[in-house]
Formats: sequence, C-alpha cells, structure tokens
Amino acid sequence: MRITGTFLDEISHDIPHQNWGAKEWDADFANMKKIGIDTVIMIRCGYKQFLTYPSDYLIDQHGCYTPPLDLVQLFLDLSEKYAMTFFFGIYDSGKYWETGNMGHEIDSNLFVIDEAFQKYGQHPNFGGWYLSLELSRKTKGAITSIAKLGDHCKAISGGLPVLISPWIDGKKAVTANTPELTKKTYILIREHEKEWDEIFDGIKNSIDIVAFQDGHVDYNELEAYLTINKNLADKYALESWTNSESFDRDMPIKFMPIKFEKMLFKLEAARKAGCTKAITFEFSHFMSPQSAYIQAHHLYNRYLEHFNE
Amino acid sequence: MRITGTFLDEISHDIPHQNWGAKEWDADFANMKKIGIDTVIMIRCGYKQFLTYPSDYLIDQHGCYTPPLDLVQLFLDLSEKYAMTFFFGIYDSGKYWETGNMGHEIDSNLFVIDEAFQKYGQHPNFGGWYLSLELSRKTKGAITSIAKLGDHCKAISGGLPVLISPWIDGKKAVTANTPELTKKTYILIREHEKEWDEIFDGIKNSIDIVAFQDGHVDYNELEAYLTINKNLADKYALESWTNSESFDRDMPIKFMPIKFEKMLFKLEAARKAGCTKAITFEFSHFMSPQSAYIQAHHLYNRYLEHFNE
Amino acid sequence: MRITGTFLDEISHDIPHQNWGAKEWDADFANMKKIGIDTVIMIRCGYKQFLTYPSDYLIDQHGCYTPPLDLVQLFLDLSEKYAMTFFFGIYDSGKYWETGNMGHEIDSNLFVIDEAFQKYGQHPNFGGWYLSLELSRKTKGAITSIAKLGDHCKAISGGLPVLISPWIDGKKAVTANTPELTKKTYILIREHEKEWDEIFDGIKNSIDIVAFQDGHVDYNELEAYLTINKNLADKYALESWTNSESFDRDMPIKFMPIKFEKMLFKLEAARKAGCTKAITFEFSHFMSPQSAYIQAHHLYNRYLEHFNE
Repeated sequence: MRITGTFLDEISHDIPHQNWGAKEWDADFANMKKIGIDTVIMIRCGYKQFLTYPSDYLIDQHGCYTPPLDLVQLFLDLSEKYAMTFFFGIYDSGKYWETGNMGHEIDSNLFVIDEAFQKYGQHPNFGGWYLSLELSRKTKGAITSIAKLGDHCKAISGGLPVLISPWIDGKKAVTANTPELTKKTYILIREHEKEWDEIFDGIKNSIDIVAFQDGHVDYNELEAYLTINKNLADKYALESWTNSESFDRDMPIKFMPIKFEKMLFKLEAARKAGCTKAITFEFSHFMSPQSAYIQAHHLYNRYLEHFNE
Repeated sequence: MRITGTFLDEISHDIPHQNWGAKEWDADFANMKKIGIDTVIMIRCGYKQFLTYPSDYLIDQHGCYTPPLDLVQLFLDLSEKYAMTFFFGIYDSGKYWETGNMGHEIDSNLFVIDEAFQKYGQHPNFGGWYLSLELSRKTKGAITSIAKLGDHCKAISGGLPVLISPWIDGKKAVTANTPELTKKTYILIREHEKEWDEIFDGIKNSIDIVAFQDGHVDYNELEAYLTINKNLADKYALESWTNSESFDRDMPIKFMPIKFEKMLFKLEAARKAGCTKAITFEFSHFMSPQSAYIQAHHLYNRYLEHFNE
Repeated sequence: MRITGTFLDEISHDIPHQNWGAKEWDADFANMKKIGIDTVIMIRCGYKQFLTYPSDYLIDQHGCYTPPLDLVQLFLDLSEKYAMTFFFGIYDSGKYWETGNMGHEIDSNLFVIDEAFQKYGQHPNFGGWYLSLELSRKTKGAITSIAKLGDHCKAISGGLPVLISPWIDGKKAVTANTPELTKKTYILIREHEKEWDEIFDGIKNSIDIVAFQDGHVDYNELEAYLTINKNLADKYALESWTNSESFDRDMPIKFMPIKFEKMLFKLEAARKAGCTKAITFEFSHFMSPQSAYIQAHHLYNRYLEHFNE
C-alpha cells in the first residue's frame, strides 16, 4: 500500500516552520509527485491569528494578520501544475484545544467556508474539504459541529467530498507538550467501537471520508483498531483512508521522521484492514528530500527503493 | 525595521553547540554582514565551569576550565575585520538561576570586568558591556546588582555603553526545561509597568540601553508592552532597542528557528513602539545560512528577499 | 585519549532513526575508521517488537517482526571490510525498563544468545558480547541476571569477552522523557562505591569489561567517580573502559551532539583515571560527518583537527 496523499502543514501547530517560499514549495510538489502523491490536504487555513490566505472576514472580525503570501492560491496552482486534488482545511481558532468544546469553532467557520469557496472554489483543482477539528471521543459539541460544518461545505460546493482525520484515544495519545510518550488511562477497544458507532451515526450524511491517524496505539494493536474503524465506516457508507503518520511518536524529541520499517508496518496493517487510500501527516517535514530533517531524506530514499523494486 | 545586531551564543546555556572553529565563525560574520548586522554581543564570557577566554581569575579562584580557543579574541578580531561593535557579556556562575538571588553574581564579576577590560579593552572594536544577568521582576538583589555592575563597567572603561536584555514575565515565560509552552500565572501589564518604573529608577545611571526580549507575550499584546517599555525608558533617558528572538517559542521542540512571518510581525511592533535598533537572539543558530538547523537557511533567504526588495 | 570504539544504535530506544541503508552504513564505517575506531558494539539485537536480525525464536515466540534488512550480517561484513571487532548486544524486551526487574530479560536471552551465536558466531569479526541491560544500582535481579547471561555467553562462545556499560545514578541521571536535566535525589559517591563493590563481587567471573557511561555526574565530579570505578574494577580483575557520551545532557533538546570541549574534558578525566580504552555512545548520530545532526559534522572536524595535530 503506497502513500498517495499528504497534508500540507501550514499554518503549523506543533511542527517548526521550514520557511519555504514559492520556489521551495514548487520543488516539493515535484518531490511528492515522484513518489506517487495525487492528493494534498491543507491542514488548516488559519490557526489563532495566523492565516494561509488574506481572509477579509478573519482579519476584520477576529483580528487575524494578513499573511505575506497567499498559500491557498499557491497550493492550488501547484496542484494544477502537478495534477493533484486539493482539499481545503478549515480555520482553527485554538479555542477548541483550550476548552475541549468544539462548538466554539462553528460560527466563524460557516463564514470562512463561504469566503474560501467564493475566492477559490472555481479553481479546477479545488477538490474537497478537510474539517481540521480533530476529534477522538464523543466530546461536547463534536457531533453537532462536524455535522453542521460538513453539511455547509457540501451544500455550497455542490457536494464536494468532506474528509475528517480523527485520532484514537490510545496509549500514545499524549499532547505534543507532554514529556511522556504514553499515558496510563486510555480507551479500550470496545469503548472505542461503541463511541465511534454513535459518532458515525451522527455525522454519516455530513462527511464522506474518514482517515484515522495511525500513531496512537501500539504496533501490535493497530490492525485490530483499523479493522474496527473500517467495518464501522462501511456500516455508515463512509470511505476509509488511513492517515499514516510519518513522524515517530516513540522518541523524546517531538517530532522527527519515523523509521521506514515502522511506516511499512503501519501501511501493511492498513492494507489488511481494507483502507482504500493512504495519506500521511506529512510529507514536507518528514519524508521530503529537501526537509530540514535529514532523516527525512533517507526515508524518501528507502521508500523509493522499496516501492520501485 | 531591520535587524542590525545579534548575540553570539557562546558559552551556550540551552541551545546545543554547533562546534564551530575559527573558520566557521569567520564565514558567519560575513553572513551577518550581508544582512546588515553591525553589532555583536557575546552572551556571556563564561557559564559555570566553561569559559570563552582563559581567565586567570576564574580558573584559579572558581575552578573553571581553560578553553581550547580564546573566543573573545576571535570575536574581537572578526568584529574588526567586518567593522562591527563588540559588546562583552559578563560571567554567569549559574547560581542566580538556581537561587533567584542575583547578589551571588556581583563579587566575581567585579574581578572579571577588570580582567577582561585589561586584556581586551584596548581593542578598537571593544565597544560596550552586556550584563548577562537576565532580569524580569524586581527580584531579590536585582537592582543593586545591575547598578553595581553597570557602574563598575562604566567607571573602568571611560563610560562605554552598558546593555541589558530583560524578559517580560508574560504568558510564555516558561523555562527551557518546562514541557509546557505557556503558564497560567503571569504578570499583568499594569504590574509590569509599575515594577519596571521602580527598576529603571534604580538603575538609570548605571546602564545605557535596554533591549527587552520579545517572545514572552502573545503576538497581539506585544506592541502594547513594547510601547510601555519605550515610554518608561524615555522617562529615565535610557535607549530602547528590541531583542527580537529568532527562535520559535510556540513549538514543543526547544528551540528551532522562527517562522519568518512571526519575525516580521515582531519587528513591525518594535518599529511602531519607537525602538531605535533591533538585535536578535540569535543569528548563528536561527538565521544563518550555515546553521545546523536548515530552517534557518530558509529564514535567511526569506529575510534577504523581503528587505532587499 | 582517543575514541576507538562506538556503539551502533540500532534498534534505537530514544534517538530518532536515520533511515540509513547498506550504502550509508558502509560510508559511516569508513568515517569511523578515519578517526581510529576499531571496535563496534551493536547496542541491542532487538527492542520490544523490532529486530536487527530475523530471529526465528523472537518472531515465533515473542511476536516480533521480521526486519527488512539483516543488520547483524551487514555490521559483521562491514566489520570485516574495515578490520573492526564486533560485539553483539542482547535483546531488550522493554520489560525491565517498565518494571525495574531485570529478571524478566533472562529466559528469552538465553535462547537469543544461542541462536545468535549459531547464526553469526563463526564470522571472523564476531568478537564479543554486550549485555544491553543497563544497570546502575543493586536493583532487583540485577546481579543474578548479569551473572547468568554473562556466564552463558562465555560458555557457548569459548570465552569471548563480555562487556557491560552501567550508568552512575548521579545528578544528571534522568530519563529521556523527563523535561528536567537534573534530579534532586541522587547517589553519594560513598554509596556508589559500596554498591558497586558488591555488584562487581557478584559478577566478576561472568563479565570481562566495564565501561561506565560518563554523562550522569557533574564535570567536576567525573574524575573522582571514574577513579573509584577503575580501582574497584582492578580489585575484581575487570578491564575498565570509558563510555564517553557524544551527546549533550545539558540541553533541553534530547539529544544533540556534545560540545567538543566537553568531550575533550571527559576523555582527559578517563585518561587520568586509567581507563584503557574509550568507546562512545555513539558515533553515527553525534560525531559522524554524515549525521542528520549537522553539529556532528563540525564535532568530527574539531576532533580530527585536535588529534591529528
């Protein structure tokens, strides 16, 4: 199973910026193309005050800052040049992370979705929406928020596909600012199944694709979780992708590129579980031959060697 | 507003060493020159047992180690070659960080200042002093220590300028060894103003320049803080620079180069507040095209593109 | 005192993988050779589910995964090509780290040692064993475990030398996942001496070489500790090497290459204490001119400059 999609981690949340300009992004899309990537997903269009595009709404109403470069336009143009489908990630005010209540993110995003589609929706490579509000459990406001936002995306765009990428609240589900690598209290597989049955039931008409993050459970549990997720998604007629993380959650440095062997192991688990596509978080920091992390250059070479054999 | 000064982070406190020799430092002074740097500030002449120059006093009296290279001489010679002003940073025994009492640092530094000026003071590029004892609040011994040390520096050197670079005890003022990125209890802007009014009153005749670190408050609070600092400094006839940090305090890896957009934002806030010069902590790790952090190479390119337009 | 041996940190525990293939490892053995390395010690043959060689026993009995490359064979062949002695590091299930009881590691390793020696023991460069169960204090099961495993290694291999590399439970002995750099409660030098007298007495016939890690105590205490260790080792007729860590324990990023001056200081302390050989943890991440950490490239250059003078 090959990786054919990647997030574009701008604006970044917890991975240091690479300070690339248009030239470096162009070169990286070429790098992506070479390993077979056909889908790019912008992780979010803004985070707190910083934006990927000059949003009149967010600048006027939320005090956000005008960005020096319109990354959405750049990513769309590069998607066209390299024949890729672009998914637009919605705005993250940071309030959900602070309060645990996803409801805070609804109102502003209804405006953002309108504005973004008006500005960029006619671009031939604008191919879908990514709801950047990562959820894991049936937390407060989660089902309503995802449903409302997904419905709105689909309504105004003629039904373009909506993607979510939840995480499993497993052993390794610790925040980036926690020094520990694992936690003692985590979800059991049956609870996970029960909660996600209810979540999917509540959002089944509002989203199209679910790509669980694959880094929060032990390697030997992964296939079991992916299989449960696939079966539940099938029950509600949702498409199952895997979000195969290309960084290593087992190391005290947060975060560096993953060992190739671990990536292969996780992709194989997704294949066995029946996922129909593999995307990764994310190519440009962790797999690119021009990444600031040199471990990524070797990961790229190992990947090419393996899959071009 | 352009950056025209940088700290030289040797001996390093919490940023890993780059293991540069004389050749690499020479190349980096050339890199600095190219973006318009005319001032270099050695962060400290020693930290605990490690020294930048062979100080008979610190080796004999404090058990410090003879360094393999006299960095003070090297930095002075490179300052001459590249027409820069060199500020000498005083000794840091580590005791202030452990005890919170700055008084521990006075006695040894009176000797160090004498010794350093005797050894290097006649060098044409020896242009000032940096009091490396970073202060933030009106803590125990702070005013007395800064006053005594500043007075001594000025007395023996014919009044060469004395620089301090305090931090604001804001939301992001956490130690490098704390996993969190923010803290819950921090100073309010009126308390900050009141305390610094008293601090400046106590040290106004002993120092010349104050360059507050700009990374400890939220982006949207920065201009307000810088403006208060500028007004207070004006009241006591002190010169206001900004110390615009070129590393990113918002990321769990401590520390990596900052996103160019954030740097621009902070420089613009300093310009609006009326700061007369911008220095950075620091060029060689976080902005240099030969840094061990490749993100810095791109930051350098973005900076050159922007300011040479 | 020069470094003439290095660990090979595969499978890695807390240092991110470099994703090297056979070509990169070959080049790195050449790099090692150039600074005088004649001994390579594979840190462990497996960690939890991941393995360096296709062990039928660990795959069948412990659910481990078949590795994509037989690193043991590769390292042995490179040892032959570059005339180095290879030490085989035994398996680490991770249970000792979780429970503090080393007894868990005995049974599986008796099988692993048999299997490994049968597969690789006839290789001309298979030169010794490394007991990867790092110990520090007289903890539960430690003496028995080391003795049993060392005895078994020697018995089946005609007495090939057995190496251990303990750590001193000093001020800097914090785990990799702890944000702090030091701890408040640590061993006193007399306790250390008393405990290690007993430990050595219990394992003196089962091991041959002891290489204490040199990074857990303050620089000014190091020589005293190394001297005690050397005297105790002499008393029990054990050979004393030093394991001079080439990463920096004083920085919040865990872990980056050490400053050359600190490395020199530690090697000099080992020389004075009478250590007969210096090995390092480890060359490929922290000293190699092809490391992903560019600081390591400069460390390599400083090292070559210093020792080739």
